[in-house]
Amino acid sequence: MNETSTRHSLKARFIALEGGEGVGKSTQAKRLVAALAERGIEAVLTREPGGTSGAEMIRKLLLEPPGTGWGVQAEALLFAAARSDHVAKAIKPALMAGKWVVCDRFVLSSRAYQGLAGGLGDEEVRTLHRIGSGGLAPCRTILLEAPGDDVAERLRMRDGDEADAIGGRNAKYHADVARGFAGLAQGDDSIVQIDASGSADDVHAAVMRQVEPLLGVET
Amino acid sequence: MNETSTRHSLKARFIALEGGEGVGKSTQAKRLVAALAERGIEAVLTREPGGTSGAEMIRKLLLEPPGTGWGVQAEALLFAAARSDHVAKAIKPALMAGKWVVCDRFVLSSRAYQGLAGGLGDEEVRTLHRIGSGGLAPCRTILLEAPGDDVAERLRMRDGDEADAIGGRNAKYHADVARGFAGLAQGDDSIVQIDASGSADDVHAAVMRQVEPLLGVET
Repeated sequence: MNETSTRHSLKARFIALEGGEGVGKSTQAKRLVAALAERGIEAVLTREPGGTSGAEMIRKLLLEPPGTGWGVQAEALLFAAARSDHVAKAIKPALMAGKWVVCDRFVLSSRAYQGLAGGLGDEEVRTLHRIGSGGLAPCRTILLEAPGDDVAERLRMRDGDEADAIGGRNAKYHADVARGFAGLAQGDDSIVQIDASGSADDVHAAVMRQVEPLLGVET
Repeated sequence: MNETSTRHSLKARFIALEGGEGVGKSTQAKRLVAALAERGIEAVLTREPGGTSGAEMIRKLLLEPPGTGWGVQAEALLFAAARSDHVAKAIKPALMAGKWVVCDRFVLSSRAYQGLAGGLGDEEVRTLHRIGSGGLAPCRTILLEAPGDDVAERLRMRDGDEADAIGGRNAKYHADVARGFAGLAQGDDSIVQIDASGSADDVHAAVMRQVEPLLGVET
């Protein structure tokens, strides 16, 4: 192991990309991992719900629910179960091995969707995360935000089969989610809000401005 | 609706049968429902994990887990999610419709298996039940208990395919579960312990002695 990789292995970081549907999280997560690789930093790209074989099985139940759908309580418990498996078997082992982890959605999504927009309550979602995953918190949560109209346009351009049990909900629900995300970001220094209405290059540059301070070479 | 059914409909009761593997819960649950029917009381027979289409999907994940199995946290969250669906879509609607509900396993199983034997903690399991199902408590929980040797013999007589991810665990785990159940029954008036080492007729008679006081005609 050379000096550089040793240095980075001691500075494993966990970064979550968050935001509503169609805001560009997946694209930015991929670009972030590629940018880290250019700097010699190995980062694991993962997503929620999913990221392990067990969590992907739960993802399927969430996106293709039984007849009348899940109640918000069952939905929150399933997300927490998937996250528990993902944290225990993928995220923590990667961090322990000195890798960075870039995750497309994490607990802030559960707080905004089920906790606030769904009405379960933020405290309840945080409690499930504490019981399921020891309350593991990202070093930095990057919240991508864009006006509702921009997002609706991006979603229209997606293939039809991308619509699912959660993405397919109505506009009011998604507006509640966006407001929930923004509210949760207030007063939490680990969450940074980024305007995602610009080009992918612009947004990537803004993401990197938030990530640069976390790079071992700069601390 | 005649006078009898009206009277009973106002006295809907929720009874849970609990205990370790092979102790005779399913047999006794069926006999209890049949005995209630003889008294003109309609009772829904159900079981956990399962009892609704969603909960049965989760049951399958629990009994056929991915590669390395679920951690106790994820397992407890999945049981709580299945219970949440079961309570919301089957148990509560039946009770609201004036029916009795007889359930083969309920939250006491999660407390004994994941909470105590699995080491998650009783308080954590109760918290998941509060968030998932509003902490719904049976009117009476009937805990069937039998010496370990009797149970081992009954389990040997079952078909091989009854063994699953939880039933197939080692003897120490099942002894921990039995001790957990007994400990939880202490000091909780809603839980009655019944010696299940006798014949099915004897155990049924003991169950009925606990249920008789709940019958509308006797209160």
